Amino acid sequence: MSEYGTLQDRVQCKQLLNKVMAPEQTIEFFKNGMNLGWSGFTPAGYPKVVPIALADHVEKNNLQGKLKFNLFIGASVGAETEDRWATLDMIDRRWPYQTGKNIAAGINAGRIRMGDKHLSLFAQDLGYGFYTKDSESGKLDLAIIEVSAIKEDGSIVPTSSCGVIPEILMICDRIILEVNTGQPSFEGIHDLLTPLTPPNRQIFGITHAGERIGSTSIPCDPSKVIAVVESKLRDQGRAFAEQDDTSEAIANHIIDFFTTEVKAGRLPKNLLPIQSGVGSIANAVIGGLAKGPFKNLTVYTEVLQDTMLDLFDSGKLDAASSCSLSLSASPGFPRFFENMDKYFDKITLRPLSISNAPEPIRRLGCIAMNTPVEIDIFAHANSTLVGGTRMINGLGGSGDFLRNGFLKMMHTPSSRPSKTDPTGISCVVPHCSHIDHTEHDLDCVITEQGLADLRGLAPKERARRIIEKCAHPDYKAQLTEYLNIAEKDCLARKVGHEPQLWDRAFKMHLNLEKNGTMKLKNWDVKIDLCED
Amino acid sequence: MSEYGTLQDRVQCKQLLNKVMAPEQTIEFFKNGMNLGWSGFTPAGYPKVVPIALADHVEKNNLQGKLKFNLFIGASVGAETEDRWATLDMIDRRWPYQTGKNIAAGINAGRIRMGDKHLSLFAQDLGYGFYTKDSESGKLDLAIIEVSAIKEDGSIVPTSSCGVIPEILMICDRIILEVNTGQPSFEGIHDLLTPLTPPNRQIFGITHAGERIGSTSIPCDPSKVIAVVESKLRDQGRAFAEQDDTSEAIANHIIDFFTTEVKAGRLPKNLLPIQSGVGSIANAVIGGLAKGPFKNLTVYTEVLQDTMLDLFDSGKLDAASSCSLSLSASPGFPRFFENMDKYFDKITLRPLSISNAPEPIRRLGCIAMNTPVEIDIFAHANSTLVGGTRMINGLGGSGDFLRNGFLKMMHTPSSRPSKTDPTGISCVVPHCSHIDHTEHDLDCVITEQGLADLRGLAPKERARRIIEKCAHPDYKAQLTEYLNIAEKDCLARKVGHEPQLWDRAFKMHLNLEKNGTMKLKNWDVKIDLCED
Repeated sequence: MSEYGTLQDRVQCKQLLNKVMAPEQTIEFFKNGMNLGWSGFTPAGYPKVVPIALADHVEKNNLQGKLKFNLFIGASVGAETEDRWATLDMIDRRWPYQTGKNIAAGINAGRIRMGDKHLSLFAQDLGYGFYTKDSESGKLDLAIIEVSAIKEDGSIVPTSSCGVIPEILMICDRIILEVNTGQPSFEGIHDLLTPLTPPNRQIFGITHAGERIGSTSIPCDPSKVIAVVESKLRDQGRAFAEQDDTSEAIANHIIDFFTTEVKAGRLPKNLLPIQSGVGSIANAVIGGLAKGPFKNLTVYTEVLQDTMLDLFDSGKLDAASSCSLSLSASPGFPRFFENMDKYFDKITLRPLSISNAPEPIRRLGCIAMNTPVEIDIFAHANSTLVGGTRMINGLGGSGDFLRNGFLKMMHTPSSRPSKTDPTGISCVVPHCSHIDHTEHDLDCVITEQGLADLRGLAPKERARRIIEKCAHPDYKAQLTEYLNIAEKDCLARKVGHEPQLWDRAFKMHLNLEKNGTMKLKNWDVKIDLCED
Repeated sequence: MSEYGTLQDRVQCKQLLNKVMAPEQTIEFFKNGMNLGWSGFTPAGYPKVVPIALADHVEKNNLQGKLKFNLFIGASVGAETEDRWATLDMIDRRWPYQTGKNIAAGINAGRIRMGDKHLSLFAQDLGYGFYTKDSESGKLDLAIIEVSAIKEDGSIVPTSSCGVIPEILMICDRIILEVNTGQPSFEGIHDLLTPLTPPNRQIFGITHAGERIGSTSIPCDPSKVIAVVESKLRDQGRAFAEQDDTSEAIANHIIDFFTTEVKAGRLPKNLLPIQSGVGSIANAVIGGLAKGPFKNLTVYTEVLQDTMLDLFDSGKLDAASSCSLSLSASPGFPRFFENMDKYFDKITLRPLSISNAPEPIRRLGCIAMNTPVEIDIFAHANSTLVGGTRMINGLGGSGDFLRNGFLKMMHTPSSRPSKTDPTGISCVVPHCSHIDHTEHDLDCVITEQGLADLRGLAPKERARRIIEKCAHPDYKAQLTEYLNIAEKDCLARKVGHEPQLWDRAFKMHLNLEKNGTMKLKNWDVKIDLCED
């Protein structure tokens, strides 16, 4: 018996005790080519023992490539599940976000078909049946959902994330429930609502970060549940991203900016609800707020990382709303579980379709902060594809928050090392090699060099401001020279609203490929279109 | 005396009769460098006699370049105002959308600083003071608003559009009102609400296209009104865009698609609220709906054009919500005014911050349809800059609707003529020269060739589908060859999630510049980075 209660305690819908089975017994439910919906969001609350049992089965019986699935999951899940599945060639399609070396390798070598989408749109499109429209049933074939408990009426209580559980339940008639008894129940932390399809979609009437509009469990028809499996495995959350001088400098620029905005009366004294992405810069920003001058803060975001516990402990954070509790396996989750009383009532976990919905994000006026791969001088941002072609993780919710926030900010180091040059990659380029967020979506760009406030600036003014405030000193002159040449050429041809030269806009990227650095000797290019 | 009532009838706040003056008398209020807010949206409901009097003054006194202003207006206004101002060098900055030959010329030659923004964000950012933060007062210096009437309490009744009137009133203390007695009053058609700044922003609880959440006039402090001017000039609306075979073919593909979606149960029988942009394709789509099988339609959009009256007359349209009534000067407006009884109660005009707000657009589940400049094989779209550098009109509300719709569709002819080749410009290209809407935002692309349903497709699948269904036959083989070369190269390097080749992604654009057509002899390129 677990210290957190037995399976019998957690399965209060007694008819479902008949469906209890070992993970291995679920293998027969899986057929090659199935569309699967999993719970889980940015490694938290995902099913574990069933996916692992199936991977073991494939490995033991040499079924690599013979049992392949299409995976629809709120965001990434633990490497012991999706990344291992990728290694065993068990994934055909994967939507809309993933993490792991092997799955990324499969995607970029063309073995796995991945698509990314704004997470809020992924959730609703899944519920509308857009991803399963070409299958015979038009539905997901099988759902695997990790739960804390099954209530008497069959409704389910999620664990550390809500993901797209409501949408999965809308379009799936065969459900496997993994009841996690290896950790305390999360019952009471969630605010759950199944969004109806238009024209009947409800008002999401959240007017402050902690407000609740739903219930603590979500309806689930017990007759659709084909298996109940016990799990004692915990989330293999992201390791804590270390802060460094660069991220501290960025955080300081951001705190200074907030201070100025409060003074000018454009932000309330307790700011507005914070959305902060993942990684070292996000950690530094949250760390900066824990030490900073602002009180009674709120957070409305999609992931809560370890540093958010520090912000709670500082006494400066009143409430946090998120889609998932993405703490590290250690020390994050143990720290949370040992102090649940302190954090529980201040946290609300919501489904992706509500945590990332434009409606509450605009109404609350979130301050959106995310890290791109690169940004260009006109303030377009690449969040997904290195070199414009290689997928890292996916778009995530960056667009949901950047398009709808009160302030829309992106932060990045000004440069990154290439193999041969410590500043060989400039994160400020003439033209992004892939564009996920447009110039119409960003207010501020921040690097360790400074903060460029772009509000109210026309494109050429934006370009000079970004180069001046944000570019690494090794690239300032080079980028200015490009802008000058492009501006002169385009204005002379009377096509100069936003100057670019298509024979050399990507010269920095091509030079990196060829010579291992974005540092150019000059902006000359001889291009022969070979038309003759 | 006008047949539509006297100025005295319209100015019911009697203390403001003291402020009545001739347009020429307002000239003294204008100083060089001022930030001005105007009513108006996509030539409707904009001030006329005051801007024209000021233009006459500049012309008569040779003040060109000596009286320049920053113009903040919901969208474009009549050519007799902003385009004439551009000719007289009276515009320094212009946000966020414009139409007119001279103003576009000024922007692309670098004389006028323009910035475009998603219209819903422009509205709120204007209200937040983001555009006026660097001026001494932090406010707009002067507002010019066309009204139908001034109520007893000083509140104002707009005319044919609502634009950003609420936000202008929030941040402007000196207001000129143009009372238009040259047409019937629009009192009763508007649904007006001033959105409060977060954290106090209201719920916009619209649950069907015709639902009203505000009032028919908007509060205005009479002590801020410095002049009341009578105008009898009417909107110089857009001429009716003729339909042609191409736009009819596109409309037919769209109607067929709707029929399939209704059959599959993914759309209700009366569809969902339609958003349709401007131009000949939009006209053809609305025309197609007037003749088509669907009844009890609704419209939730930002502009209503002449064909919308046909859709009403067909008996198939129950309600239309818009930011403006953008009818043609003739026959549109006379037809509307002569049949006001028939149309008035079915139309709701709302401020931009509500007509274009993500909140109602997602809740209602709009079907968003807009025309881009070009689209690329991975479904990024360029809506604003020809050749990636020359501004046409601006982004408008395309992103508000495409990001938030139930179905997100873009329609374009598959090719356009260049100077020397009737199909010299392919509207499907390997990589857009400017990206306003990303691959994460589009569900369907339609040309006269066909409709590409991209839902659930990974990038390389999308590319093949778009080429197959949408590209002009003159370009199908050429685009496929590019995709094949790029795919082979990128997959070999294991960076092939979304293949591109940066030495030739813009070869079609460069060839157009050099040789007058996007048709290539081959995909070879010799590029010398001139690094040695």
